This record gives sequence, C-alpha cells and structure tokens, in this order.
Amino acid sequence: MAGENGGRVRRPIITLLTDFGFAGGYVGSMKGVILGRTDAEVVDITHDVPPQSIHAGAFILRSVIPFFPEGTIHTVVIDPGVGTPRKPIAIRSGKFFFVGPDNGVLVPAAKSCGRPEAREINVGKIQKEAVSNTFHGRDVFAPAAAYLAGGGAFEKIGPAVRSYNDLNFGEMRKVTMGLSGICVYSDSFGNMITNIQASEFLKLFKTGDRVSVSVGEIRQVVEFRKTYSDVHPGNPVVLEGSHGNIELAVARGSAQQLFGAQFGTEVLFKKLKF
Amino acid sequence: MAGENGGRVRRPIITLLTDFGFAGGYVGSMKGVILGRTDAEVVDITHDVPPQSIHAGAFILRSVIPFFPEGTIHTVVIDPGVGTPRKPIAIRSGKFFFVGPDNGVLVPAAKSCGRPEAREINVGKIQKEAVSNTFHGRDVFAPAAAYLAGGGAFEKIGPAVRSYNDLNFGEMRKVTMGLSGICVYSDSFGNMITNIQASEFLKLFKTGDRVSVSVGEIRQVVEFRKTYSDVHPGNPVVLEGSHGNIELAVARGSAQQLFGAQFGTEVLFKKLKF
Amino acid sequence: MAGENGGRVRRPIITLLTDFGFAGGYVGSMKGVILGRTDAEVVDITHDVPPQSIHAGAFILRSVIPFFPEGTIHTVVIDPGVGTPRKPIAIRSGKFFFVGPDNGVLVPAAKSCGRPEAREINVGKIQKEAVSNTFHGRDVFAPAAAYLAGGGAFEKIGPAVRSYNDLNFGEMRKVTMGLSGICVYSDSFGNMITNIQASEFLKLFKTGDRVSVSVGEIRQVVEFRKTYSDVHPGNPVVLEGSHGNIELAVARGSAQQLFGAQFGTEVLFKKLKF
Repeated sequence: MAGENGGRVRRPIITLLTDFGFAGGYVGSMKGVILGRTDAEVVDITHDVPPQSIHAGAFILRSVIPFFPEGTIHTVVIDPGVGTPRKPIAIRSGKFFFVGPDNGVLVPAAKSCGRPEAREINVGKIQKEAVSNTFHGRDVFAPAAAYLAGGGAFEKIGPAVRSYNDLNFGEMRKVTMGLSGICVYSDSFGNMITNIQASEFLKLFKTGDRVSVSVGEIRQVVEFRKTYSDVHPGNPVVLEGSHGNIELAVARGSAQQLFGAQFGTEVLFKKLKF
Repeated sequence: MAGENGGRVRRPIITLLTDFGFAGGYVGSMKGVILGRTDAEVVDITHDVPPQSIHAGAFILRSVIPFFPEGTIHTVVIDPGVGTPRKPIAIRSGKFFFVGPDNGVLVPAAKSCGRPEAREINVGKIQKEAVSNTFHGRDVFAPAAAYLAGGGAFEKIGPAVRSYNDLNFGEMRKVTMGLSGICVYSDSFGNMITNIQASEFLKLFKTGDRVSVSVGEIRQVVEFRKTYSDVHPGNPVVLEGSHGNIELAVARGSAQQLFGAQFGTEVLFKKLKF
Repeated sequence: MAGENGGRVRRPIITLLTDFGFAGGYVGSMKGVILGRTDAEVVDITHDVPPQSIHAGAFILRSVIPFFPEGTIHTVVIDPGVGTPRKPIAIRSGKFFFVGPDNGVLVPAAKSCGRPEAREINVGKIQKEAVSNTFHGRDVFAPAAAYLAGGGAFEKIGPAVRSYNDLNFGEMRKVTMGLSGICVYSDSFGNMITNIQASEFLKLFKTGDRVSVSVGEIRQVVEFRKTYSDVHPGNPVVLEGSHGNIELAVARGSAQQLFGAQFGTEVLFKKLKF
C-alpha cells in the first residue's frame, strides 16, 4: 500500500469515523492500538456522529470516500450492537477497504465505489489479546484496520460473507410537477441535505426558478440558486450541494432551525402554478 | 525511540491531553512548537476534559496509555496552577514518558505502568525563548515533550524530584453483601464508570444476577450483563466496561442522566435479599 | 520544503482552520484531497470557529502562526462568500504561505510575519476536476495547499493581486488616565482577550495595581496580576495573556460569563483615583 511520492514513501491511511465524541479516551485508545502495530497515517473523519446514528454515519462516510487515495482503509465504529452476535466485517470495494460492524453503516459507501466483497473478521487471527464485550473499536476494528494497513491479505482476514445487512437512504419519488425526498443529513451549518440527486432535479427546475418547498406543515417559495450568497442573509435557498444532492439552506442561517427537519423528514419540491 | 517497521522508520509519538477545548488556537500552538523541533507524530487524546478537572484527565490518561507503543511521550496540560510555583515535571515509568504539571494528573497512569521516576523540568534547558505566565502547555510542556522525542536524555531534563503530588480515585469498600465505590468518569454516552474493579465484583456477582444499585436517593434493581444490548433500550444495565471497571449504563440511553451522578458520587451495589 | 531532522525527512506541514465543525465530513474530505496529492502533515488548528466569524478566525490564525516551522502552509476556510466572485487567494509572507478566500481572514496573520505578496489562485491550474459552487475548501483551497506542499512555485499559482480585502481588530485608544480597547476573542475558558498590547498597558499600570475595568454597564475594580491563580477562585483578574495582549479573566471561572462581552465589546481600563 506504500507508494513513492516525490522521493518520500507514503504511509497507508486509516480513517476513523465514530460516535465516541472527542471528550473521552476511546478514540485515543484506538489510535494507540493502530500506531503500535503499523506506521499508518490516522485521519479522523469525525467522532461526533450523534450516538448510534447509523444513517448519519453512513451518509458522512459515503460523502468523504471519493476524495481519499487508493488503498485507504475506512474504519467505522457506530455500533449499538457491540457484544451481540452481530458480525465484525471487512469489505473491499473499488480501491478502498472498509472495516466495521455488520449493521449497514459501511454499505452505501462501499456500493458507491465498486462491487463490495465482504468477509467476517476472524478476531482470533488479528487480535491475540482479550477482547472486551463493549469496545470492539479498540479490540477488533482497530486491529483489523492495522492488519490491512500492514499489508495483511484481505482474503485471509476471515471467511467470505454471503449476505450482510444493507442500508439505504430511501428513494426519491417523482410526484405531479415535483420531486419528493427525505432529509438524509443536516450539517453543522444547519444545511439540510436531501436524497434527491441534482441531476434529477435539474430535469424539472433551472437556476433562478422559484420552487415550492414543503417540509412537514411548513410550505415556502424558495429560489433555486447556485450558492448560499445568491440570496439575502436570513433567506432560504435551494441549491446543489457539494455532495451532488439537493440541499435546503438559509443564507448565514440554519435551515434545520427554520424547517425543523431531522433524518427522515419528507421534503417536497414542486413547480409553482402560473 | 525510532524503530524499524516494515522498512519504514517509525516516528516518536507525542500524545496531547488538555482541557483547552478544540475551539481556539491553544492546541495548534502546542503542535506548531512540537513540529518545529521534532518529527514526532502528534496524537490528540482529547482536549475536551472539563476545564481544570484534574481527576477526569487523570482517569482518561490512565485508560488509554496501555494501548500506546513503547517510548510514547504523554503530555497533559490540565493546569489550574499555571504560573504559580507548582513544578513542571517529567516522569519515566515502564515503557512511557509523561510530561505535565505536578498536580497529580500524571500519577495514576504513571503508577499503573511501572515505578515512576520524576524530574523537575529545567525550563531554561529546553526553552530558550521567553516563557509566559499563563500558557506553559506551549512554552514548557510542548518543548519538554519535543526534547524527549528528539532523543534528549531523561536524566538531563532537570533535577530528580523526591516527592510529587499524588492523586487517586478513592478505594472501593466492601460492605455487607455488596461493594461501595464512586463514579470516577462519565463518558460521552453517559456511561458511569466506577472505581470498582470487575475482578472484585465477580467474587460477589455473576452474569445474569439482578443487583440492587443505589446512587444518592435513587435505588434500582439492575441486571449484571455482558454488554449494553443485553437489556431492552432505555433499561439500565451493570457491566464490566472496557476499562476493566464496573460500569452503570442505559441501553441506547444515558445512565448519567438517569442517575445524575458526577465525579465522586457514591455508587452502592448490593445483593438482593431472598 | 523538506528538511533533514535527525536523519529523518520532515514532511511539509499544512494547517487547517475552518468553521466547518468536526461533526460532518467536510474536514475529512479536505484531508483526503490533500493526502491524495502530497505527503504533507495535516494539522488541525480548529474547525470550531463560530460559523462565518471572519474576525475570530483571523485572530486565532495570527495567534498560532509564530509557533510553526518555516514553510508551513496555513489554509483557512471561513468563507461566507463561497461561490460569489470573491477571489481565492494565496499569500506568501515571511516564512509562511497562506491559502483562503479574499475576505481579510488571512491578512492580520500575514502582516504580522512579513510583507504579504498575494496571488489569485488559478483554479484551472491546480484542480482538474469540477469545482462545486459551495465547497471551495475541498475543491480549491485544499488543492492549492497541496500544490504548494508538493513544491509548486508560488509565482505560478496565479496572477499577482494588487489589492486585497483588509481586516483589522481596531486600534486601542488612549483616554484620560487609561486605555480603551475591544474584546477581540473569548477563549474556551471564557478569558476575554483585548486588542490592547501589554507593552502599552505596562506604561500605565504595574503588577499588583488595582484597575478600574468597565465593560458596558458593568464596572469593577480588578487586580492586575501575573497569572490566573494570583486571585481567589471566582474573582476577576487582569493579566498579560499568552498572546501578548491584555486579558480579562476569572480565576477558575469565566470572564465572558461575568462581563458578557462579545467580539467588539468595548473594554475600558482606568487608573483608580486617590
């Protein structure tokens, strides 16, 4: 996994994405395990996924992976089922590896970059020490990521898994003169990201259009523009976000606060009648 | 401190554990100082220890150090006495170094991994520039950690310290048909970690037992299980945590919210009468 | 930019300072872009600048840069104007490079370390792929920082910029028997940092003096001391902060809470009458 780069050897990259928060020692313990076994570069994606929010973690993972170099090992620990018989798995798909629990959190990302091949992690193979019942991030997933970073063969990490738990963000639906989707993520600016692909949206609407937006009880007419600053501060705006999905935002404000949407809330975009 | 690892040279590791928060520039300044003086790998343990909470920092430090490789330099800046005559110290214990203020924050970790030898940091030796009265993380502790990471001799960092300030998490007590301890840490999931070693608890209780738990005015009967998901969501559970201590948790909820315990709150576990 | 350090090659350093928060995938995407193009060491300064707070970001940047080694590339994405015609710029000043939007956020830091030379980033040159309208951190600034880290010539990053947007923290004013300034930053301890240089303050006051402090409607007599612990817990104190500016603090408490100041609030220090 090491390559040449301007005369310097590139270290393998392991990313971490968890719901542990940065406040305690859980992330630090995982990094210690990794750095004790490999010289990988450890990159924090985030540790502030809302506790046990598998959908939010899956969305963030899928949104970041296209930007990482070949061979990156993405490690996700959002794991409400830790200690139960849920399988620890590793997936190879496209140019990436994924390590985490078999609860679907890895799947949208793995499907987005290739044909996923999954294996159940043979814990005894990658971890000689005792495994706790409550912290597989440290005792199973960090060692598995380090095993892959150190050049361990994917085929030997454990037996192939025929079926694994799937997860999706729901399908957008075409409705009369519009599109219906759900809010799949709210970022730290309060921008509401939907599961509606911009490419579909652009078949119905063009930049500058005024669009009828309904979120629960709230209905507003909102402009479809290129960027946040194309409307006055405090005003809502619909735009193509950096994820390639349609976003609902408020210039220098929070759409989440204005519309009150959470994961799964339906968002309806319709053409205005004339 | 550098070793071979698959043909690549491993860089020395410096960990940082502070109460600075991630919001300002304090952590960044420390990293700049370290990276300007050494090629160490800098690993954030956390910077979100509650302000000036020496006990919480000491607990987190002790919980993470076993997972780091030999030679790691653990740097802790939870330092309400900065600028007073409290000593800046470096400790060598087992395979690790520790750097921080002499207020006890380093001690539980240092004692857990060997026989601590402490030295007062000779600031003039490791820092040629002016030292502020308010930010020894940047002006004293980061330079001291970089000195050690660069291969500086521990014996030359300053004079040996005969006595340093101690800190402990209190002793659990055996009571009639039970064990009494205190809450030493609440993690970001709201799990309450006690100072009761699982090995002692297992002399009185076995997995599956129903246990009488008292926290302040609140008394509940709680199951002792292997992992969080062994009880229904919203229910409390007693288990052996990943720190090797007995934890009080709520499946997909927060024990801290349910029981309201803080650092030092007494937690009493007793056998049920028949 | 690579130098020798104890036989090991030092990697170039890219710092990141944004208002993205750590909770989503934006920071991770930027790191992926950088690590896919260069072997730079990526250092987080902070991602918790209050959303779109250009002044706070500018202050933090200026406070950390003196501590980084020569050649460090400081990348700042606090960019409410993303997608508008505001220019993406790179600045060389003293021993550092700066990359970010032309909204003034880079300027106080760049001026503090040398004579800034600014260039508009030629996006087509450093980024072959499509550029989004909403996330130039990932699509413009990360590639530009990676270009410089990889040894790309500053002169070829784009055309020289004759004038760029300035930003300053206001000037302190001398008043009868005192100094008037503003609060330019509140750190995570609630310490209020002013734009008054300690060197000027020391012409009027000496350590141990009791000083009349006015913040809005609140007026208190506060001691000027060396460090936080020189007054009893809960008491306010004036001191020279680690930034070289005069700070208003509360020992083991929060001055921001006591005095209620925000960015721009006037703070007046006067001699007591006898």
